[in-house]
Amino acid sequence: MRKKIKIGLFGYGCVGQGLYQVLSKTNGLKAEIKKICVKNRNKTRDLSSEIFTYDKNEILFDPEISVVVELIDDATAAFEIVKTALKNGKAVVTANKKMLAENLEEIYQLQQHHGKPVLYEGAVCGSIPILRNLEEYYDNDLLTGIEGIFNGSTNYILTKVFDEKKSYKDALRQAQELGFAETDPSLDVKGFDPKFKLAIAIAHTFGVFVKPENIVNIGIDKLSDLDLKFANERGYAIKLIARAFKKDNQVFGFVAPQFVETSDPLYQIRNEYNAVQVHSAFAEKQLFVGKGAGSYPTGSAVLSDISALSYDYAYEYKKLNQAHDLTFSNELVVEVFVRFDQRSDISINDFEEFYSGYASQGQHYMQGLVELEKLKAWAQNPSIGLIVAPQPQLQVIRQREQVEFAA
Amino acid sequence: MRKKIKIGLFGYGCVGQGLYQVLSKTNGLKAEIKKICVKNRNKTRDLSSEIFTYDKNEILFDPEISVVVELIDDATAAFEIVKTALKNGKAVVTANKKMLAENLEEIYQLQQHHGKPVLYEGAVCGSIPILRNLEEYYDNDLLTGIEGIFNGSTNYILTKVFDEKKSYKDALRQAQELGFAETDPSLDVKGFDPKFKLAIAIAHTFGVFVKPENIVNIGIDKLSDLDLKFANERGYAIKLIARAFKKDNQVFGFVAPQFVETSDPLYQIRNEYNAVQVHSAFAEKQLFVGKGAGSYPTGSAVLSDISALSYDYAYEYKKLNQAHDLTFSNELVVEVFVRFDQRSDISINDFEEFYSGYASQGQHYMQGLVELEKLKAWAQNPSIGLIVAPQPQLQVIRQREQVEFAA
Repeated sequence: MRKKIKIGLFGYGCVGQGLYQVLSKTNGLKAEIKKICVKNRNKTRDLSSEIFTYDKNEILFDPEISVVVELIDDATAAFEIVKTALKNGKAVVTANKKMLAENLEEIYQLQQHHGKPVLYEGAVCGSIPILRNLEEYYDNDLLTGIEGIFNGSTNYILTKVFDEKKSYKDALRQAQELGFAETDPSLDVKGFDPKFKLAIAIAHTFGVFVKPENIVNIGIDKLSDLDLKFANERGYAIKLIARAFKKDNQVFGFVAPQFVETSDPLYQIRNEYNAVQVHSAFAEKQLFVGKGAGSYPTGSAVLSDISALSYDYAYEYKKLNQAHDLTFSNELVVEVFVRFDQRSDISINDFEEFYSGYASQGQHYMQGLVELEKLKAWAQNPSIGLIVAPQPQLQVIRQREQVEFAA
Repeated sequence: MRKKIKIGLFGYGCVGQGLYQVLSKTNGLKAEIKKICVKNRNKTRDLSSEIFTYDKNEILFDPEISVVVELIDDATAAFEIVKTALKNGKAVVTANKKMLAENLEEIYQLQQHHGKPVLYEGAVCGSIPILRNLEEYYDNDLLTGIEGIFNGSTNYILTKVFDEKKSYKDALRQAQELGFAETDPSLDVKGFDPKFKLAIAIAHTFGVFVKPENIVNIGIDKLSDLDLKFANERGYAIKLIARAFKKDNQVFGFVAPQFVETSDPLYQIRNEYNAVQVHSAFAEKQLFVGKGAGSYPTGSAVLSDISALSYDYAYEYKKLNQAHDLTFSNELVVEVFVRFDQRSDISINDFEEFYSGYASQGQHYMQGLVELEKLKAWAQNPSIGLIVAPQPQLQVIRQREQVEFAA
């Protein structure tokens, strides 16, 4: 039966405050926050001061606390908290995607070693229970791919830019004011945040650990008015899409802006909503939609993790036992639109296959198949814009054959 | 660790055949069909005859078989199979929504008594893992409601009627040919099938057992060309919506066609797709979309249940322990459009609140608030058509106050 849980909480920002409120409202869940560790001694807070501490050891070495909920920004400090908590026999709930993505294999091993679980549903796509479903429900080797909108703030920005014809700058500022965008917006707009989430999702989809630095991320920071015009003329939206898929014994994955047709279920996903589409051989496509940014969606996922701990739930990383000889690879060719001007040095020869070219307002577009490693290099060049084609062709280089995933 | 499972299968229709194929393809899942019990001795089948039996006891009394998968049509026979299997210490997977809905409380008690699980994800919304998520992820008392498109064949029909301007009759025939519609289409088009699913979902959402005969179901069988014209003029779709929600200590639920605006996420759900929207105080709305009809979607859910059994998973019916004094009630007022002709005896006095009236082609429309019990009676009258208003007002009679759910 259900255990009574005493929680030590790190961080008392929006998510932490929402969590505190909701825990006091739910009777079903027998969980109570005993101590909250915060950094800033001078901030006024809405709870009586006895519950706060500035010393992390007051939580980490309190034998009465069985669950540590970690909701701080600093990935390095967060990892230290996770390690010490596990070592001291505590379960951990965290939503720190950067920390998780960078240390997932070690966190997996620490869980095995100390026999205590780390749950992190809140780290991937906010309120959408995607990890739990990948782990528990799609627990077989029929999964072929996942793709989706993994970042709420960039989707919010893109929605405002497309639907309300706001400027990119205004839309970003509005997203930050609403608390959807990180203080450092480059994590969002350059595609790092969805990449961290994708790295975590890949482990639970395919049982492969991949370091985020090995995943190519192309952001929306270089989108131009011409791109928007181009999209509008063709009835496309632009979405920042994270995707991963399996082909034979290789797993591929990358994050990039993409033209999306109206018939694509991701076209409809607006504002701060996230969506994940799961491809499975037998169930075909399934779509999960929910709020991906903001304190409440993350808080609700954290709450479900706490609830799961009260039933001794732990990720079993079931796919790891099925993965065998799977490896992550960037040996991929992707169908893209490349926008560039005179300063850049792009020619038809850069394309594995060249489909068409346009020129407008001193800018050139070329559409065709380009190696992912080349796209990665081009992404660093400020005079080159990259947008993946709608329903893109994706070809494994070694085999030079079309991957069915995209269809 | 994962157990090796020997399965006894009842029924070898589309779902059973798909299941057999996929089980032979998945290496991760150590499950094998030992015996298949079928009825018709004269049918040619694609497997060697040794695997088939016509005697149910060959499965139910085989000590080597630990899991019975029940995929037959007949609800009464299915319930007997479930009872005997549990009594003999076997776990059960079934997708028989009628059998489940009518006997759910007893099936719950039998599971407690015999200590063996019955899993039935495939019975509710095909491939969408809604029961598992309600049971495991939304495991707290913050759930306020669920609503959605629970029947793939009627959604297919409505899509064809709206998008392709097919006649209702042609669309129904096409759905049957594609295997989406039951042999007896009245189960679908009169809203019984989604009602069975709703009854099951209510148990896992709110912890309340409600007999299907206590849930009002209004079908799409009386939709007229005028209704379609009316919807088209206003830019609405018509969807057959199942919904349930909680207000204080009462749970309400019904199935009825509804006008749906383009901004409603359910508007986009087309063809045989199903969708479930979960309302929760903290996570707000979350949408699950997947194929709801056809053999593969159901088969994939059955497969996931088999997989879960290999890890000793069982529904804990967690909400039952939280439900306390919740009861199901039909004491509700619903905002509807009522279409009627001279033969029917409807007046403004039938409305709790009357909003507006129209007349066209000898037909009358009245829009307003009507008691659910009255709608139930009207649903039997062939000269009265009923369609719930978009984002309908829903008022609890006892309290006469607006329920927030609809917003």
